[in-house]
Amino acid sequence: MRIQKSKVAIIGAGLVGSSTAFSLITQGVCDEVLLVDLNREKALGEVRDLKNSIKFLNRNVQVKAGDYQDCGDADIVVITAGAPPKPGQTRLDTLDISAKIAKSIVEPVMAAGFDGVFIVVSNPVDMLADLVYQLSGLPKNQVLGTGTSIDSARLQNFLADLVDVDPRSVYGYAMGEHGDSLMVPWSTVTIAGKAFQDVITDNPELVGDIDLDDLVLKTTQEGWEIFNRKGTTYYGIASACVGIIKAILFDENSIIPVSTRLEGEYEETDLFAGVPAILNRSGVADILEIHLTEAEAEKFHHSAAIIRENTEKIRQYVSKKD
Amino acid sequence: MRIQKSKVAIIGAGLVGSSTAFSLITQGVCDEVLLVDLNREKALGEVRDLKNSIKFLNRNVQVKAGDYQDCGDADIVVITAGAPPKPGQTRLDTLDISAKIAKSIVEPVMAAGFDGVFIVVSNPVDMLADLVYQLSGLPKNQVLGTGTSIDSARLQNFLADLVDVDPRSVYGYAMGEHGDSLMVPWSTVTIAGKAFQDVITDNPELVGDIDLDDLVLKTTQEGWEIFNRKGTTYYGIASACVGIIKAILFDENSIIPVSTRLEGEYEETDLFAGVPAILNRSGVADILEIHLTEAEAEKFHHSAAIIRENTEKIRQYVSKKD
Amino acid sequence: MRIQKSKVAIIGAGLVGSSTAFSLITQGVCDEVLLVDLNREKALGEVRDLKNSIKFLNRNVQVKAGDYQDCGDADIVVITAGAPPKPGQTRLDTLDISAKIAKSIVEPVMAAGFDGVFIVVSNPVDMLADLVYQLSGLPKNQVLGTGTSIDSARLQNFLADLVDVDPRSVYGYAMGEHGDSLMVPWSTVTIAGKAFQDVITDNPELVGDIDLDDLVLKTTQEGWEIFNRKGTTYYGIASACVGIIKAILFDENSIIPVSTRLEGEYEETDLFAGVPAILNRSGVADILEIHLTEAEAEKFHHSAAIIRENTEKIRQYVSKKD
Amino acid sequence: MRIQKSKVAIIGAGLVGSSTAFSLITQGVCDEVLLVDLNREKALGEVRDLKNSIKFLNRNVQVKAGDYQDCGDADIVVITAGAPPKPGQTRLDTLDISAKIAKSIVEPVMAAGFDGVFIVVSNPVDMLADLVYQLSGLPKNQVLGTGTSIDSARLQNFLADLVDVDPRSVYGYAMGEHGDSLMVPWSTVTIAGKAFQDVITDNPELVGDIDLDDLVLKTTQEGWEIFNRKGTTYYGIASACVGIIKAILFDENSIIPVSTRLEGEYEETDLFAGVPAILNRSGVADILEIHLTEAEAEKFHHSAAIIRENTEKIRQYVSKKD
Repeated sequence: MRIQKSKVAIIGAGLVGSSTAFSLITQGVCDEVLLVDLNREKALGEVRDLKNSIKFLNRNVQVKAGDYQDCGDADIVVITAGAPPKPGQTRLDTLDISAKIAKSIVEPVMAAGFDGVFIVVSNPVDMLADLVYQLSGLPKNQVLGTGTSIDSARLQNFLADLVDVDPRSVYGYAMGEHGDSLMVPWSTVTIAGKAFQDVITDNPELVGDIDLDDLVLKTTQEGWEIFNRKGTTYYGIASACVGIIKAILFDENSIIPVSTRLEGEYEETDLFAGVPAILNRSGVADILEIHLTEAEAEKFHHSAAIIRENTEKIRQYVSKKD
Repeated sequence: MRIQKSKVAIIGAGLVGSSTAFSLITQGVCDEVLLVDLNREKALGEVRDLKNSIKFLNRNVQVKAGDYQDCGDADIVVITAGAPPKPGQTRLDTLDISAKIAKSIVEPVMAAGFDGVFIVVSNPVDMLADLVYQLSGLPKNQVLGTGTSIDSARLQNFLADLVDVDPRSVYGYAMGEHGDSLMVPWSTVTIAGKAFQDVITDNPELVGDIDLDDLVLKTTQEGWEIFNRKGTTYYGIASACVGIIKAILFDENSIIPVSTRLEGEYEETDLFAGVPAILNRSGVADILEIHLTEAEAEKFHHSAAIIRENTEKIRQYVSKKD
Repeated sequence: MRIQKSKVAIIGAGLVGSSTAFSLITQGVCDEVLLVDLNREKALGEVRDLKNSIKFLNRNVQVKAGDYQDCGDADIVVITAGAPPKPGQTRLDTLDISAKIAKSIVEPVMAAGFDGVFIVVSNPVDMLADLVYQLSGLPKNQVLGTGTSIDSARLQNFLADLVDVDPRSVYGYAMGEHGDSLMVPWSTVTIAGKAFQDVITDNPELVGDIDLDDLVLKTTQEGWEIFNRKGTTYYGIASACVGIIKAILFDENSIIPVSTRLEGEYEETDLFAGVPAILNRSGVADILEIHLTEAEAEKFHHSAAIIRENTEKIRQYVSKKD
Repeated sequence: MRIQKSKVAIIGAGLVGSSTAFSLITQGVCDEVLLVDLNREKALGEVRDLKNSIKFLNRNVQVKAGDYQDCGDADIVVITAGAPPKPGQTRLDTLDISAKIAKSIVEPVMAAGFDGVFIVVSNPVDMLADLVYQLSGLPKNQVLGTGTSIDSARLQNFLADLVDVDPRSVYGYAMGEHGDSLMVPWSTVTIAGKAFQDVITDNPELVGDIDLDDLVLKTTQEGWEIFNRKGTTYYGIASACVGIIKAILFDENSIIPVSTRLEGEYEETDLFAGVPAILNRSGVADILEIHLTEAEAEKFHHSAAIIRENTEKIRQYVSKKD
């Protein structure tokens, strides 16, 4: 029989992981969702809660709790487990403990025979995606991080609110680190194809005094704005993650900014950074190289330098394992 | 201009309320979702997190934080605020404080000019739905509780797992109180039209030794099973709530078990209990009176008696207000 | 790489085939839809028209025109090509030419290495499903016909209109031949779990004088009622076909009435007839044996006898091929 | 009661109208779809065929056949009736008869009290949209044509195929007349934000020798390519139409190129032409004025001049009515 079960495994049954599972079943994206958590009872509690949704939904997605060895035949493994930063900490502060967690996941998943796509959600996402790439030995297209997909959505929302349009009609990316050093290539941002610079010129009353640097800052801080009000963030990132899963599982060749390994693209190499990528069932099929202005390129390299510095730190963790 | 915004207001930005909002935007059910919480910053945090999902979804649903006065033009107001029972407590233990909360919601919402449908999710749901009915002065069709919709889904899941079919192909209801006294009219339960009794007869190896009373007990306890593993429950109930919202907003005449006011149906009157109801844009358009066996009717009346006893207690709260 | 393309091939680019393709892309059911037609230019015209839809839809489904040899790696092959009956003709009149067409399809598809599920839509569907089963040599679970799925939907619509409820809340089947001899097991028909006989009793003003035989007759004639008004029928059958495809591709274990091979079920053997079946990625995973009254069983056997008689005629076509 | 039925009326039950209805119910966009056709039996045949789909879909959309007077409370009236051009004819050749048909629709619909949004699909769409605007007396935002929405989708598909990406990741418009004179502002076309000119530079092997004028020609001819293969076109235009309906009914502020009345925008006035527009429940909320190069502006004015010339011809029809 030819028809194969499509299966997404989610490591970590916290609010990011379980919100991702909830969105997957609500949208009916795959045949099976597997939740894996060190606290097996917690995962089982989420599964039993999620299962009660099916009667009211449009697809009978099976939801199961399982172990790393159940991930061998998964199409996609989403890593949400980690050590979330606390206020005052940066995402990088949690490097060591996150690295340890990632290692404890990747090794048994690979041992189970996994040959699908890893999506890293845990922070610091760019460095952890690199770590998963190093540890798994999978080709670079099969490992990616959610990266600046969520920052791009936040930026698009700010712009959409400014000019009162659907955020899905705003085109523009945050690139580089999913963190304070991210940059926005403003020369390529448009409102449905209209250069944002022209939007500013034509709408002095609405956006005449806009401060672009401030918008970038707001984009980097939006996670904290949410954190400060609800103690954590999960809906936006879960939705971004499912958007990425759909592009991959549905073999769409859709372009979404994700953290992917650069090997010369954007004149950077040997690190994971957020750039627009073409996603299909091979994972990251290709990288879209948008032309940056000189100033934009400089900001991108600055962000890449920060990623590189921390990537080296985290790689020491890998080498220490020997 | 004729085209009207469709708007669902959710009172309470806890995990039930915000999961309901997340499902509404993920499914694209209405034009606007309004989150109202005494903790306005909490509601705003949820809204900002939810908004970041839109870029990855199929409909630009507006998500806003607001106050009771913003509920006046809502089509549906969902009440999720309450005092969730703690382990050892029954749903009824929280009666007084929940009543107080309900009153603090209904009065300003009605004062804002609301003339849509109230959906009560907070527990004890049957008594609180009655309270909202009494306090709002709305016609009975415009007030309902999620009631045994979630218990029915749980029962259907158990049966689906037993015989390995899609839970959406299992037809059967839990009725009466959303609580320990609920009952199941087994004579009407079918697997896609095949009487469950015949399924038992034909599949001795699978379900030959099934204990129906035990299944009912498991159905009433499933909430606690989840609670004990994750500390609360919200995905199933949020999905049930959105299922009810869709039937109403989409004017579907769909039949879903909800808590609705009985006025002679099932030989009960002047109380809210879980029974299958026809839902459309008027709210509860009608009640479906399934024929019960004598033993089933007795169990239903037993459950109704418990609801009545507690309804009277909660109504004293209303009369005390004068 | 593990992630496999999900692919549905549709043989016949007439209105049934292309409406099925349109529904598949509109609902976003699979990664690729392949249209095959003897008139390759016609198929290409449909494909180019369909492709222009993607920009406005939620999934980038690839739509392609191809040949039988492109069906080898399909998950599902839908056969819509045939010789549609003309007014005055019965579905059986077209037996010989349809058999010839079916053979010209099955042989090259199997030669291309197909090992998925055949869904036969062409009429006379029960006999052609048998023919495809005989010719393909596939296990019985991998060949099915749309059978009485569409008749069941028509019956449910009539009942839904009578009592003004959502047709999806009406549970009941048409069984046996997809043709004039089909029967309805009224003892199992319910409105959302309420026995239809009880609905009649309780609603004398609405359905007191209902003639059940007349309803069955209307069900068998509905195709002609549509045919007489628009010259053909395709939306209903395309939707039924996509419903079946979803249950299979999504591995749902959903129960839908389809034409499947009986080997003792319902006391019939060695023929294809419309009965409720559990559908998952293996195709027909199992048959649901609803208990029929004696009178209902007699009607079912009558319908089966008609199928058998014509199946024997069509099988002679197979044997003649040697 | 506040909750209002959402209703889309479709005038013309031919393949464009009925495919639009099929997409509306398959996507579950509104509560009611009304089909109106001079041939009432034809409309009824479509309705009965469409209704049989509901059992297999996710929303109980009511489908009805009706008359112009039933359009009074519609949110949107879609005009698909017309005199489709035959090979050799241009869309303009059919001007007079289409004008007559449009008048026979608009007058009784307005007499029925309609105050929603007219979407004109019939060709020549730009001139007929102007005619409906003149005849209805509605504000300009409440009348629009599908215009170059479909041409834009065709262009995007060609580009998507060239570089092997999801067409939904291609951003670019066809503007001006929905006809031979349409133009493409290439300076604003991007692959997910990367200027198409840069794509050409970076991918000499893929698109190095691309002829942009030829691509525009192909875009204008795609309708005929389909027509020549299947005798008509309807899936693409139906999907575009439903995309526009969703943006309006769902109050999305989405930006889609449609034919809307220019009053100074793009330095043109008093005619309907295809330009990107912000759509919400008021219809065309605003026009997005993309900055064109001088050469692009010249092409746009050329196209506008052709529209103007024919608009004047069709307006004579209106004045003749007195």
